[in-house]
Amino acid sequence: MTVAAALRDALGDLVDVTGTTLEAARSDRSGHSSPGQPLAVVHAETVEHVQQTMRIATRTRTPVVVRGAGTGLAGAANAGPGEIVLSTIRMNRALEIRPDDLIAVVEPGILNAELNAQLAEQGLWWPPDPASREISTVGGNIATGAGGLLCAKYGVVRDAVLGVDLVLADGRLMHLGHRSVKGVTGLDLTSLVIGSEGTLGVVVGATLKLRRVVEGETCTLTAVFPSVRAAAAGSAAVTASGIQPAIMELIDATSLAAVHSYLSLPAPPPSTSQLTIQTDGPSARVDADRIADVLRAAGGGVTLTYDHDEGERLLAIRRAMHGAFAHLGTTLIEDVSVPRSALPEMYDEIARIEQQYGLVIPAIAHAGDGNLHPNFIFEGEEVPDVVWAAADDLFRSTIRLGGTLTGEHGIGMLKSRWLAEELGEDQWELQRQIKRVFDPLGILNQGKVFDRA
Amino acid sequence: MTVAAALRDALGDLVDVTGTTLEAARSDRSGHSSPGQPLAVVHAETVEHVQQTMRIATRTRTPVVVRGAGTGLAGAANAGPGEIVLSTIRMNRALEIRPDDLIAVVEPGILNAELNAQLAEQGLWWPPDPASREISTVGGNIATGAGGLLCAKYGVVRDAVLGVDLVLADGRLMHLGHRSVKGVTGLDLTSLVIGSEGTLGVVVGATLKLRRVVEGETCTLTAVFPSVRAAAAGSAAVTASGIQPAIMELIDATSLAAVHSYLSLPAPPPSTSQLTIQTDGPSARVDADRIADVLRAAGGGVTLTYDHDEGERLLAIRRAMHGAFAHLGTTLIEDVSVPRSALPEMYDEIARIEQQYGLVIPAIAHAGDGNLHPNFIFEGEEVPDVVWAAADDLFRSTIRLGGTLTGEHGIGMLKSRWLAEELGEDQWELQRQIKRVFDPLGILNQGKVFDRA
Repeated sequence: MTVAAALRDALGDLVDVTGTTLEAARSDRSGHSSPGQPLAVVHAETVEHVQQTMRIATRTRTPVVVRGAGTGLAGAANAGPGEIVLSTIRMNRALEIRPDDLIAVVEPGILNAELNAQLAEQGLWWPPDPASREISTVGGNIATGAGGLLCAKYGVVRDAVLGVDLVLADGRLMHLGHRSVKGVTGLDLTSLVIGSEGTLGVVVGATLKLRRVVEGETCTLTAVFPSVRAAAAGSAAVTASGIQPAIMELIDATSLAAVHSYLSLPAPPPSTSQLTIQTDGPSARVDADRIADVLRAAGGGVTLTYDHDEGERLLAIRRAMHGAFAHLGTTLIEDVSVPRSALPEMYDEIARIEQQYGLVIPAIAHAGDGNLHPNFIFEGEEVPDVVWAAADDLFRSTIRLGGTLTGEHGIGMLKSRWLAEELGEDQWELQRQIKRVFDPLGILNQGKVFDRA
Repeated sequence: MTVAAALRDALGDLVDVTGTTLEAARSDRSGHSSPGQPLAVVHAETVEHVQQTMRIATRTRTPVVVRGAGTGLAGAANAGPGEIVLSTIRMNRALEIRPDDLIAVVEPGILNAELNAQLAEQGLWWPPDPASREISTVGGNIATGAGGLLCAKYGVVRDAVLGVDLVLADGRLMHLGHRSVKGVTGLDLTSLVIGSEGTLGVVVGATLKLRRVVEGETCTLTAVFPSVRAAAAGSAAVTASGIQPAIMELIDATSLAAVHSYLSLPAPPPSTSQLTIQTDGPSARVDADRIADVLRAAGGGVTLTYDHDEGERLLAIRRAMHGAFAHLGTTLIEDVSVPRSALPEMYDEIARIEQQYGLVIPAIAHAGDGNLHPNFIFEGEEVPDVVWAAADDLFRSTIRLGGTLTGEHGIGMLKSRWLAEELGEDQWELQRQIKRVFDPLGILNQGKVFDRA
């Protein structure tokens, strides 16, 4: 009996081998595809379906790729020939929402925005806010250790998950973590699973740490600077002031020009870069006024509004960025993270790499936490060698400046070749051994993260 | 050559075999001691000293107990016959303090309070605040995953560490984590080490995530209630109001009577329990006023002060608790954690256990995060069997209420017999396998955490 037949035997119509479904599972939003179609997609609806699938995969030594909404940017959910795709997108319920304990228990396939809509009805909020939040799942957010715009103030996924239910490669179900705010019983396997990109097991449930919706208004500022270095210095001055904005985004000159063109706005003066900042909570106005003073003192041309709708219009520039880049050509979105003080140097490096390799690399940054997204622009479908060479240079510069390969997108298939370089061979091998404890046959997400291309 | 001689050969005067030193290393502040003296204490002053010690330990298959200030409450740092004690207390420098990046790089032996004194000079703060902060080390705080009073608002150790330098059992040094706020490169081994109680390696350095000192005043409230259930309901009402106090401590009737007697204050009416609450930051007064309203509506008799010194006097009652308990007899301090909504039921369970086993168990709680410290009082040095039986009952009740064995003290030698019960056999075995990846010979903290008594 073939693997597909064994799956069909156990799971019936949940096993999908239609061409369009298999084709869609070859790629995520990284712009990369696997070499061919996987053998089947299992649309799991229960934990038991996941366990059955993993038992068959283990018995038949068949590799498995776990997949949520497929919005990842590192190729971690791309599935290829001979692989089973285990989709958890139909496991999409919030099982429990507890305002008294500030926790929610959810299935992995619920969309981040859908969960937050349900939470909002009770004045609650799960803070992680990846740009994909309307279309990405909580399970995928956990698998990648997602970030977003609000992280400097409200934390990343790792700060917002108390427990994870995990099905191992052999089908056993484990309840990791706890429902209490504090807990140090044994090793913290919950944190180990967060960001493990489908290499350790299948996340089939999660206990999330909630906040109450922030009271008060939001205020929004933009500040234009004559150079990206000046804008980076402006953001550093805000950080140094001790005021904590909710959002602080840096838009470099290439990005600003691209989005102005895309939105049919007048072109900004050459080399103009911009900070977009939002404050919230009870002290939103006071904070915004103080930030405006700091930015003016740093040489910025400041626009400040206390009005919500006007603020949204200012933020729209930042939100239109991906569309603007797509207009320039095909993009390879990168995702490096450096200590905040290294932001100006990192922009110097990007400028050097643009010149050295003859590329255009618009780069936006979550300036409040030092996470940059340089976008390598090129023509056609395939990433040209020169872009890979430039990316290689970028990663080495990042590591040299005390940074890390990926702030919030993950390693996936795109960055596995650089992983050992950052971790060192010893730690890389140790991490592979830990993966083997969870997945001795190595059937989970083969060729990703820990496999060098 | 004996192990002690090999150590002396390599490390000279850093190797201490004086009787008082060896005797002191037998116990921490748990009230428990190992069966006898260890073979030597190595006072490491550098990373290289730690590596040399571990190489000798690996070569000679000698078990090693890592030790900071010895203030732990679970016996994890207690060392016995045949063991090397590796003390990191002399590695006590803050190597780097970066206000621009809000990080500090420190050696493990620096005291929490000493670090915070250095940070305060630059307006900075490392939030974890275990009650032991004046006498416990940052390395010990990391090893236990320590908590404290401020956790509900400002987080636990796990939220405040970006990276850890770890020497493995075989002497190899690994740099885990990163200096950037965001980072999802590979598995999160930093979180795995936090709370691992010396079972995975020796923490020889840490990159800490700092905050700026909170601006504004602090306001303090106490509220007395006719019963512990009413006080627990009062704290739940505060949580439900959405106001986030910095501190919210619950003192049950036995504890309150004990501390009043200890401080020679008039005895409170029978069964009176108390909440002690502190607010801070720019909205401290507004928050305190609103909390006072909530507590009065919940039937509490409220005292509120905006004055710092008067606030400290109110908090002194809570701070005197350990002295008051010691006055009652020998104490076994427990440390269970439950979802906040289960706090009233947990107090019911404690009352039942007191009756059933004929014990006195004053229990205070960090009510903002559901972490309770029931103190089993007994006569003499040895924990009587009836206390262990009652503790066993307490742990089972905790797990049944969705809680966890230890919120902030750790498993150590005291709770290892219950670990598998909470984790389940499968996860317990998985955790042991992960330990073996780091420490294949099993020489690190033998008989603790993962070894069933």
